[in-house]
Amino acid sequence: MVSSPVAARRIAVINPNTTAAMTARMVDCARSAADPATEIVPVTNASGPASIESHYDEALAVPGLLAEVVRGESAGIDGFVIACFGDPGLDAAREVASGPVVGIAEAGFHVASMLGRSFSVVTTLARTIGQAEHLVRRYGFADQCRSIYACEVPVLELDEPGTDARKLVIDYCRRAVEYDEADSVVLGCAGMADFCHDVSEQVGVPIIDGVTAGVVLVESMIKLGLQTSTRSEYAKPLPKTYI
Amino acid sequence: MVSSPVAARRIAVINPNTTAAMTARMVDCARSAADPATEIVPVTNASGPASIESHYDEALAVPGLLAEVVRGESAGIDGFVIACFGDPGLDAAREVASGPVVGIAEAGFHVASMLGRSFSVVTTLARTIGQAEHLVRRYGFADQCRSIYACEVPVLELDEPGTDARKLVIDYCRRAVEYDEADSVVLGCAGMADFCHDVSEQVGVPIIDGVTAGVVLVESMIKLGLQTSTRSEYAKPLPKTYI
Amino acid sequence: MVSSPVAARRIAVINPNTTAAMTARMVDCARSAADPATEIVPVTNASGPASIESHYDEALAVPGLLAEVVRGESAGIDGFVIACFGDPGLDAAREVASGPVVGIAEAGFHVASMLGRSFSVVTTLARTIGQAEHLVRRYGFADQCRSIYACEVPVLELDEPGTDARKLVIDYCRRAVEYDEADSVVLGCAGMADFCHDVSEQVGVPIIDGVTAGVVLVESMIKLGLQTSTRSEYAKPLPKTYI
Amino acid sequence: MVSSPVAARRIAVINPNTTAAMTARMVDCARSAADPATEIVPVTNASGPASIESHYDEALAVPGLLAEVVRGESAGIDGFVIACFGDPGLDAAREVASGPVVGIAEAGFHVASMLGRSFSVVTTLARTIGQAEHLVRRYGFADQCRSIYACEVPVLELDEPGTDARKLVIDYCRRAVEYDEADSVVLGCAGMADFCHDVSEQVGVPIIDGVTAGVVLVESMIKLGLQTSTRSEYAKPLPKTYI
Amino acid sequence: MVSSPVAARRIAVINPNTTAAMTARMVDCARSAADPATEIVPVTNASGPASIESHYDEALAVPGLLAEVVRGESAGIDGFVIACFGDPGLDAAREVASGPVVGIAEAGFHVASMLGRSFSVVTTLARTIGQAEHLVRRYGFADQCRSIYACEVPVLELDEPGTDARKLVIDYCRRAVEYDEADSVVLGCAGMADFCHDVSEQVGVPIIDGVTAGVVLVESMIKLGLQTSTRSEYAKPLPKTYI
Amino acid sequence: MVSSPVAARRIAVINPNTTAAMTARMVDCARSAADPATEIVPVTNASGPASIESHYDEALAVPGLLAEVVRGESAGIDGFVIACFGDPGLDAAREVASGPVVGIAEAGFHVASMLGRSFSVVTTLARTIGQAEHLVRRYGFADQCRSIYACEVPVLELDEPGTDARKLVIDYCRRAVEYDEADSVVLGCAGMADFCHDVSEQVGVPIIDGVTAGVVLVESMIKLGLQTSTRSEYAKPLPKTYI
Repeated sequence: MVSSPVAARRIAVINPNTTAAMTARMVDCARSAADPATEIVPVTNASGPASIESHYDEALAVPGLLAEVVRGESAGIDGFVIACFGDPGLDAAREVASGPVVGIAEAGFHVASMLGRSFSVVTTLARTIGQAEHLVRRYGFADQCRSIYACEVPVLELDEPGTDARKLVIDYCRRAVEYDEADSVVLGCAGMADFCHDVSEQVGVPIIDGVTAGVVLVESMIKLGLQTSTRSEYAKPLPKTYI
Repeated sequence: MVSSPVAARRIAVINPNTTAAMTARMVDCARSAADPATEIVPVTNASGPASIESHYDEALAVPGLLAEVVRGESAGIDGFVIACFGDPGLDAAREVASGPVVGIAEAGFHVASMLGRSFSVVTTLARTIGQAEHLVRRYGFADQCRSIYACEVPVLELDEPGTDARKLVIDYCRRAVEYDEADSVVLGCAGMADFCHDVSEQVGVPIIDGVTAGVVLVESMIKLGLQTSTRSEYAKPLPKTYI
Repeated sequence: MVSSPVAARRIAVINPNTTAAMTARMVDCARSAADPATEIVPVTNASGPASIESHYDEALAVPGLLAEVVRGESAGIDGFVIACFGDPGLDAAREVASGPVVGIAEAGFHVASMLGRSFSVVTTLARTIGQAEHLVRRYGFADQCRSIYACEVPVLELDEPGTDARKLVIDYCRRAVEYDEADSVVLGCAGMADFCHDVSEQVGVPIIDGVTAGVVLVESMIKLGLQTSTRSEYAKPLPKTYI
Repeated sequence: MVSSPVAARRIAVINPNTTAAMTARMVDCARSAADPATEIVPVTNASGPASIESHYDEALAVPGLLAEVVRGESAGIDGFVIACFGDPGLDAAREVASGPVVGIAEAGFHVASMLGRSFSVVTTLARTIGQAEHLVRRYGFADQCRSIYACEVPVLELDEPGTDARKLVIDYCRRAVEYDEADSVVLGCAGMADFCHDVSEQVGVPIIDGVTAGVVLVESMIKLGLQTSTRSEYAKPLPKTYI
Repeated sequence: MVSSPVAARRIAVINPNTTAAMTARMVDCARSAADPATEIVPVTNASGPASIESHYDEALAVPGLLAEVVRGESAGIDGFVIACFGDPGLDAAREVASGPVVGIAEAGFHVASMLGRSFSVVTTLARTIGQAEHLVRRYGFADQCRSIYACEVPVLELDEPGTDARKLVIDYCRRAVEYDEADSVVLGCAGMADFCHDVSEQVGVPIIDGVTAGVVLVESMIKLGLQTSTRSEYAKPLPKTYI
Repeated sequence: MVSSPVAARRIAVINPNTTAAMTARMVDCARSAADPATEIVPVTNASGPASIESHYDEALAVPGLLAEVVRGESAGIDGFVIACFGDPGLDAAREVASGPVVGIAEAGFHVASMLGRSFSVVTTLARTIGQAEHLVRRYGFADQCRSIYACEVPVLELDEPGTDARKLVIDYCRRAVEYDEADSVVLGCAGMADFCHDVSEQVGVPIIDGVTAGVVLVESMIKLGLQTSTRSEYAKPLPKTYI
C-alpha cells in the first residue's frame, strides 16, 4: 500500500478473494474511471477463498477483508471499495474505516437507478442469485430491479480465453432488456468489470460495472467531505477480548 | 452558457426558480465540490415563480426548466443537476438530455444511504413535506428515512441576515438525530446548500446538501461514460404539434 | 364554460391535450355515466401538445391544464376530472381547486380494486408504461396490479377507422386475464373511453374506463360534501412573483 | 325488502349486527347522500351479536349477513354496502351477489385517499384497531394511513345521550391532524355516521363516514354498469352439501 | 374429545369442513409428526360445508369451527390447529382459546421460510389462489413466495383412487422449482397431508404439509409455555346479546 | 460433542461468542424447553470475540462458528441453533449443515408472530438496533414489529449481580406494550434467555426468548423430516482453494 505522495486522495479497491490476477484486471478498470488526482490502491485479500461463490466463501473472506481495511485505515486511505458483488463485510468495514466504504452491488444499483426506471442484474453462478436479490431489497431497489440472471460461468473462468462468458453475458443482458423491459443492466461480478464497454456496445442500453461505479461514488463522498456516520451503529467497534 | 474550452466536462446546475441570487449561492457550493476539470454552468430559470413551495409552483417552473435543458443539450452540456428539492421535471429532462440528469433530492438520498442505515430530511415549509415523502418512497428509500421536518422558513428568506433559519435547521437536525435515530440528515432545499458545513459541525453527523451531491453524482456518471437509457420510456419525445 | 342554471352540480372533464375531437368523444362517455343532475363541462387544454405520450409532453401540458382549473374555479365548477392516464398536474390542481379533483388513472384503479382482487392495465405506447407503473405504486395498488400492456397504437390513432386499435386492446385484455389472472382491466388512455363496452363484451371481465370512473367518483365526493383537504400541502398556493 | 317500483336502482345497506336502531341511524345518513333515484333498502342482520367488537363477534355475524345478501340478490337488489368497519364477509358477499359490494372501511379509505396525501382513523374500542390496521394494509393504503385511534366508547353507547362520544371523536381527530399530520379522518364505525358533519365543522379537515361513502361508491359502480368480476375467485360458490 | 389422562399435552386438530374421512387422514399424519407425549385430538366441524373452496364456504364453516374451539377450551385442550389452508377463523379462535392456535397456511409458510430463501404453494382449485396470496402477504411472506399453482382437483377428490391428483401436485411442484426457482413447496390443502412424503421424494426439495407443521408449531409454543397475547385485540370477546 | 447414545435427536446450541459461562446459562434454558428425547449439545465458539456487539464482532465470530457447524455435521448433529441475536453466519451455516439451522432472532420473530398481531424487541446496546431492524425486515416481519429498544447493558454484564439489567428489560418491555401497543416482546440477546420467565410475570404479555424458541423450532423441523433445501443457493459450497 505504498502510494504517491502527490495524489489528492487514495482509494483502496479491495478484492475480497485471494486471486491477484482478478484484482489486477479490476484495478485497470478502476483507474480508467477515477480522477487523475485519485490514486487507486489495489488490495488482494491475504486470506480466504480463491473466489466467492457461496455464503460460506463470503463468510471466510470477511476477516481478511476487514484486516485490509484496518491496515488501509492506518495507512491513511481515504475511502474503500469492496469489490465483490455480495458486498461482503460492508457494515463491519464501515465501523472500522473513517472514510466512506462502498460495495460494488450497492454502487451498481445506485448508478443504475439514476439512468432509467429499471435495471436487471447478470451474475455468475445461479447459487449467488439469492444474495443479489437480498441486496436489491436491503438497499431499497426492489421496485427497480426487473430480473436477475446467472450465466453459470464460475468467477475464475470469466476471463479464460476458451469460455464464452462474454457472449453469455451479452445474451442475458439482451434477454433482460427484451423480455423484462430493463432500462439498464448491472454486471453482477467484479470479474466482469472489463466486459462493460463491449457488452454495452452490443446490447444498446447502459451497462453498469460496480467496481468503477464504486470508485466514482467513493470519490464523490470524499469530495463532499462526507464520512460514514459515527452516531451509534457505525461507531468504532468496542475493544474486545479475542481468542 | 459560455464556457471554458479547456474543461473536461460541463455540468449545468439549473435553478428551477427565477431568483438569480439563489443560483449564485448554490453554484458557489457546487464549484467547491466539483473536480477542477469540471466546469459548472449556472442556469437560472427564465420563466416561472420566484421560489417553489407548492405543487403549483413546481408545475409552472417545469416548462422553463425544460427549455434550459434543451438549450444546454444544444450547447453540448454533458450533464444536468436540477437544483430544487422536489426534483421537478426530472423524468422529462431525462427524455430530452443526452447526458445524465440528477435531482437534488434523489442525490441527497443516494449519498445519505451510503453513510449509515438511516437519514432524516430538514426542509423549508411544512407544505412541502408531502412531496419529500413522495420522493423518498418513489426512489426506494422509505426504510431508510426516519423523519422529515420543516423549519417553516420560506425559501427566499433562508439567507436573510435577520432570520434564524440556520439555527432552526440545526435544531431540527439535532431532533432527527436524538429522537428519530437518524445517522445523517439531508438538507431539503437548494437554498440551504451553504449551511451544510456549519450544520454538520454543530450536529456531529453527516449533513448532505443535494446540490453538491448532485454535481458529484453527475460527474460520476460522466466519468463512467453512462447516459440515461434511451430504450423506451426515456427515448427522445416524439415530435408533436404544440399550441 | 357556460352551463345550465338548473344542474345540481357541474363537473369539468379536462382533456389535458389540445385535440378537441378527443375531448368530444370522452365527454360523450362521461355524460352517459353521470347523473342526470350533473352537468358535464367539456374542456380542451388551450395550450400544449396535441397528445401526451411522454413525460415531456405531460410537463408542457400541465400549465395550460392548471389555467383551465383556475378558470373553472372562478366559474364555480364543483369538481374536476383530469382526463389523461398519467394524471398530469393532479397535486397542483388539488391546490388550486376548491372541489374534488380526480385523475383517470387513479379513478380506474380505485374502481377496479373494488371489483376483484386484481387488475391489469392496457395502454397506448410502451414508453408510457413506466408512468402507469409509477402511479400504480404511488396510489397503493402495486399488489393488485398484475400487468401493464401497451398496444403500441398512438393516442391520436385510436379512433382512426383503419386501425386495429380496438382489436389489439381486446387481445391484450385477454392476455391479462388468461396469463396474468387479472380479474378486470383498466383502459390506459382517455382515448379508449368509448371502447369500454365492446371490450367488456368480448373479454368477459369488467373493463374500466377512467374517464367515466373519474366522473362518478367526483360526483360521489360532491354528494358527500367533501373537498380536498386544505390543511397544509393542498392549501391554496402562496402568492408568488412570476416571470 | 319491499321497495319502490320507480327507483332507478336499489342499494341494500346491511347492518351486520342485530341492533335495528343503529340501522335506522345509518340509513338516514345513507339517504341524505344517495341520488334521488336510488332507493336505500335498510337491512338489519337477523342473527348474530348485537354489536361487533371482536373477531369472534364478526365471525358469528357473517352467516346472517350472507343470508341477507342472498335474499337481496333474489329480490334484485343492485348493490350492497356492508356497514361495519371490519368489512365482515366482504369477499364472500362478492361471490354471492351479482352487483357490486363495498365495505365501509374500504369505502372510507378510497375516498380519503382522493382528498389529500394522508388520513387517520378514529374508531371505537382499542381492541378493534388491529382489524382496521389489517384492512388498511390489505387494501393498499398503508402509506397513506397516519394513525388509528380508539375513543374507547362501545359501539352501542355511541349515541347514548349521556356519553361524551362525539367530543372524544373530535379530540382524537384533532390529535390525528395536529400530531400525525393527517389530511383527513375516516370514522371507524357505522355508528358514527351521524357525527360526520359536526366533527368536520369542529376539526376543519374532511371527515369521511364509510356508510355514506359506501353508498355513493356502489352507486358509482352501478352507473358505470360494473359488477364484481366472476372470472375465478369471485365466481358463484360451488354447490355444496351443508350440515 | 375424550383423551388419555397420561398425555403431557393435548392438541386439537380441527378440520373446518364436515367430512370426517378427511379428518381421519390428516390426523394420521399429525400423529406421525407429534411427540409421543402429545395427544392429537381429532375434531370434525359439526356444521358447515363438506369442503371449503370459496370465501362463502369458509364463512359458513367458521361458526361451527369456533364452537369446537370453545368446546376444546372447556375440555382443557392445550392448543389448536385449524386444518384448512385458508386459515379460517384464526383471529377469532385466538380470542376464545387460551392456548396457542395455528393455521396450516401460516404454519407451512413459517417452516418453509426457515428451509431456504423461497417457496411456492400448490393448492387445489384456482379460485382459492386469491386467499393463499392474501395470507402470504398478511403474514409477511410476500418476498419469499415465488408462485402459487392450482392443480384444479377439488378437495374431496384428492384421495379418490381414480384421480391423478398426486401426479398433478408433483408436476406443479416441479414447475415451481424449475421455472420459479422455489427452494421448497408448501402443499395448499389439508387433504394433501399424506402426499407429502411421496411428493418430496419425486421433486427433490422440501415439501411442507401445513397440518403436521401446525402440530409441531403448536407443540413448540406449549413447550415454551407461551399463549396468545391477551393484551387487547386477542383478549376474550366481550359478552354480547346474540340472536 | 460427546452425546448420549439414546437421544432421539441431537441439537447443537452454538454460542457464537467465546464466553463459556454464557453458553452454560443459555443451554440450561434450552434444556428446559426441549423434548426429553432431544439432547442439547452446548457449543462455545473456539475463536472470535468474547461478546458480539457490532458488525465487526459478528464478522470475526463467523468463521469459528462455521467451523463448529462443520464439526457438528461430521458428528451427526441433527440440527443447529445459532444463539446470537444478529443471526450471524446463518446463510453460510445452512450451506454446510445437512439438518435445519435456525437463528435466534428469526426464531423469536416467528414465534411472536403466532401469538398476536405485533411484537417489539428489547436488546442490549443501542448500536445493535440497526441489525435487529435489518433482520426484522429481511425475514418479513416489518409490519408486525412495533419498536426496538436497547437497555444499554453490555452483553457480558447482563448477568452480573450488581446490574439492574433485568429491571431495565422489564421497563422497556412495559414501554413497548403501553406506548407501542406490542402484543408480545422478543428478548434481543441470548444472554437474556434466563430473564424470560421473570419478565413475562412482571409485564403480563408473552415474552419470547430466541434460544428456547430456536430449539423447539429446530426440533419441529427434525420431527417433520425437513432439511434445508439443497436446490441451488443452499447447496454445499463448492470446493475452493483457501489461503
